Amino acid sequence: MRKKKPAPSMKIIPLGGLEQIGMNITAFEYNDSIIVVDCGLAFPNDDMYGIDLVIPDISYLKENEEKVKAFFITHGHEDHIGALPYVLKELHVPVYGTKLTLGIIGIKLKEHSELENVPLEVVSYGDTVKLDDFNVEIINTNHSISDACALAITTPAGTIIHTGDFKIDFTPVLGETIDLQRLGEFGKKGVLALMCDSTNALKPGLTMSEKTVGKTFDNIFAENTGSRIIVATFASNVDRVQQIINSAAKFRRKVAMEGRSMVNIVSCAQELGYLNVPEGLLITTEEAKNYPNEQLVFIMTGSQGESMSALSRIAGHTHRKVSIIPGDVVIISSTPIPGNEKNVSKLINELIMQGAHVIFQDTHVSGHASQEEIKMIYRLTNPRYSIPVHGEYRHRIAQKELAIGLGMDKDDVLMAKSGDIIEISKDEMKIVGNAPARGVLVDGYGIGDIGNTVLKERHILSESGIVMVSIAIEAETGNIVDLPKIISKGFVYHKDSEDLMIGAEEVLEREVNRNVYADFVDLAKMKVDITGGLTDYFNQTIKRRPMIVVMIHEV
Amino acid sequence: MRKKKPAPSMKIIPLGGLEQIGMNITAFEYNDSIIVVDCGLAFPNDDMYGIDLVIPDISYLKENEEKVKAFFITHGHEDHIGALPYVLKELHVPVYGTKLTLGIIGIKLKEHSELENVPLEVVSYGDTVKLDDFNVEIINTNHSISDACALAITTPAGTIIHTGDFKIDFTPVLGETIDLQRLGEFGKKGVLALMCDSTNALKPGLTMSEKTVGKTFDNIFAENTGSRIIVATFASNVDRVQQIINSAAKFRRKVAMEGRSMVNIVSCAQELGYLNVPEGLLITTEEAKNYPNEQLVFIMTGSQGESMSALSRIAGHTHRKVSIIPGDVVIISSTPIPGNEKNVSKLINELIMQGAHVIFQDTHVSGHASQEEIKMIYRLTNPRYSIPVHGEYRHRIAQKELAIGLGMDKDDVLMAKSGDIIEISKDEMKIVGNAPARGVLVDGYGIGDIGNTVLKERHILSESGIVMVSIAIEAETGNIVDLPKIISKGFVYHKDSEDLMIGAEEVLEREVNRNVYADFVDLAKMKVDITGGLTDYFNQTIKRRPMIVVMIHEV
Repeated sequence: MRKKKPAPSMKIIPLGGLEQIGMNITAFEYNDSIIVVDCGLAFPNDDMYGIDLVIPDISYLKENEEKVKAFFITHGHEDHIGALPYVLKELHVPVYGTKLTLGIIGIKLKEHSELENVPLEVVSYGDTVKLDDFNVEIINTNHSISDACALAITTPAGTIIHTGDFKIDFTPVLGETIDLQRLGEFGKKGVLALMCDSTNALKPGLTMSEKTVGKTFDNIFAENTGSRIIVATFASNVDRVQQIINSAAKFRRKVAMEGRSMVNIVSCAQELGYLNVPEGLLITTEEAKNYPNEQLVFIMTGSQGESMSALSRIAGHTHRKVSIIPGDVVIISSTPIPGNEKNVSKLINELIMQGAHVIFQDTHVSGHASQEEIKMIYRLTNPRYSIPVHGEYRHRIAQKELAIGLGMDKDDVLMAKSGDIIEISKDEMKIVGNAPARGVLVDGYGIGDIGNTVLKERHILSESGIVMVSIAIEAETGNIVDLPKIISKGFVYHKDSEDLMIGAEEVLEREVNRNVYADFVDLAKMKVDITGGLTDYFNQTIKRRPMIVVMIHEV
Repeated sequence: MRKKKPAPSMKIIPLGGLEQIGMNITAFEYNDSIIVVDCGLAFPNDDMYGIDLVIPDISYLKENEEKVKAFFITHGHEDHIGALPYVLKELHVPVYGTKLTLGIIGIKLKEHSELENVPLEVVSYGDTVKLDDFNVEIINTNHSISDACALAITTPAGTIIHTGDFKIDFTPVLGETIDLQRLGEFGKKGVLALMCDSTNALKPGLTMSEKTVGKTFDNIFAENTGSRIIVATFASNVDRVQQIINSAAKFRRKVAMEGRSMVNIVSCAQELGYLNVPEGLLITTEEAKNYPNEQLVFIMTGSQGESMSALSRIAGHTHRKVSIIPGDVVIISSTPIPGNEKNVSKLINELIMQGAHVIFQDTHVSGHASQEEIKMIYRLTNPRYSIPVHGEYRHRIAQKELAIGLGMDKDDVLMAKSGDIIEISKDEMKIVGNAPARGVLVDGYGIGDIGNTVLKERHILSESGIVMVSIAIEAETGNIVDLPKIISKGFVYHKDSEDLMIGAEEVLEREVNRNVYADFVDLAKMKVDITGGLTDYFNQTIKRRPMIVVMIHEV
């Protein structure tokens, strides 16, 4: 009997985004071709001292460099595009995306002269890009940024639907409702696997339409006709900005923008036709001085309490052009991202102390699908397999539970880890290997040169400081030939700790002496003994364990 | 015409708690007597590197030591009692509180042999303590810990009502509803000032009764009869523990406690009669091995994701006695305190990955009064003045707005700052001076020896690390007599950064040489030049700014 020929298979390799929040990047491989969806960064955790940002490890793509054909970007948020300036220096391939997405990427790449010639290929909803055996169709979705898309990735192995970040908005501010019909068509033809956004998989019901926020802005504007209005929101939420502009126009106010990313993205969106601004409405902050407060709206960055943002600088009196006038209405139009809650609270307190009236959390809706929307996507696409993506483990497993509730077999829903090499065909889905997928830490110009050792050192330094000892001794006699130097940083305030440091000098002398013998000096042991002696001494006297570094000069 | 004799006045000095969360302590002064209400600690902010905790600055009390008569403690939470072990070493006065409050304080003081003889004076609801011109009445309230009280502090100047932390619970788990009648009686007689909890002043409506949580526990226990149940909550929330015990008894489960503070407080509460445990219900974790999973409940610390708590150690596989069995139901019975959100998320993800089913945020109610309850207290006490306390600025000003909404004059509601010396009589309330009230930082045994300089150093060290240079030069010639040593910590990984460090050595040599003249060596300038040279070098090559320390031995 002839053995049945195996169904054609392909590989899916999430190189990030499943353990971390952010850093979304997934490779799709069929035969000798790879396409990569998204290329995001992650912001450092609290224990990543001094790290600026985290980018994906692309070793797997570098090893298969000749296979990599292109990046497809689902939308213009940092967690989906932020690593491109780093990665495109190593992988010279075109980037496909919708007009606004590529517009925002363009702003980023412009800052790197060597990335001037990266081909940015604009695609539209409904387009299909053919690359070797891949057919990638761009599908309209809704999200908290315009021009977001899902991807239908078809190879001979089947079709994978990758939703990107999405919600179902029946009344979007700009453009159309997510293309439910097209998703349904794919479902009817047969979808091999669904990779669906899990962010709000713990939230029952449906996410509200972005348009509901516009109504709230109108109400706030109507109630505060006598005050200047300042709205802080994400620069990338162009639809939000549009609605603030709409309210401003309705209530005959002028609008000024503050914050570099706000100015950049707004002008990009306006240029590309994603923002509809009535003639003469936008003014500069300088021009704002010519208008009474009640005719002004400022739209600015800083809704997350980020320390260098426009609103934080205003609250901290370090903004050069704007400061709070008692009576100002400040609208924080976002919800704190986990980890930012305390910064946002601090910001609000500072603004209120200066006389502002702060409106918080009434003017935001999520950009991610809640449970009923996720179920809708499952019903439309009716996938053979599912790999929940985008979210912490608890969110992804909540999606898995939704899928099981809809009748899927639990073994057909994969809780993947970043780095898993998933092989998938209509007959089976399995993990066949692992690619490196821990984030690469970026600090200044250094990429990947900071690892656990350095982070551990920074941790100890931040908790307890450092005590440095330097001595010069005569090689033969072991006599100390210059006064030993003990310097500390981040340890104690020397002026107030004279007794402590005198004690330390005594320990030092004792440990030096006990390693000086008649005929030789045991320098190696001396170093160890000084370190141990001082560690014990500080622990016993003040219960602290600074890092100790000993340098001995033999002269 | 004779001048009207001024009304008698008293002073109120909040020494903490108004800027920080936590660190509640307020002095009340009349003539030559001072009583102090509460003596809490604050947990360090993110920018207080390595600090264990923050305690109040009691300079004002020390300066007026002979006046200080006693502490009155409103309830047994850390932000109201945590600084007592430090402060009582400096001020030798009795502590008044209800039975459970003093029981918990007793556990703390037992760890300090020099505090053995502090008089702990048990008072009951309705008692009045007379100290010189002060009459302090203890009034029953409700909170998330039993035996909480408000204080009616009466002097010839009038009566101040200090609510402590409170809510209005019509069906408390233990004891009676807050004594609304007595508060009303004081209101009828005339209250000079109200000092009311602001924590939930932004929350509309009424806070739910603690008893509603018991109902939810019953439901969860009923739905999960086949699983082991683990509940994490605050050790100090004795009423919560009581309700878990009630559900366990109802569903025929045994209960084991884990976590030092849980074990301590539960046994204290049980001993004092605040916890009603059926005979034979409590078992040890060792004994739990003899029972099937479905007959077990663990109650433990760790609902805030605290790294050393029982639940975190279980999640991290470092707990010696307990580990997660797939199918376990873990109930997190608290809401994350701002700043702890990420730790709690991390904990939940770890537990789910190990197969636990985690129930989060369904089994908690707040211990603080919402808007309608705050209004109720204002209506009952009908105060002449108000000083909102306990809460961030935005919460306190929200209470002020509530008070204004009830008809109070805005000038009669004082937004005080910690350290304000408030003079108050029936004719006026004004700030007449300032006492030191910045928190005192505690690190190990060191109290107050860490200030801004050390914290700034720790900040730089944590962000960028340190580079230490030590050289020995011949005094006369300026010749370097031993190889210069360059050591770094928290900066780069040396093995991977050889080129960088070779470059640094060249900079070092250059800066040494240019300070060696024919007839002398300029050591001071050499040090400055080396520091500057290396700073520039590292900034240019890898865009980092480590701390640089240079030590020069002249031999």
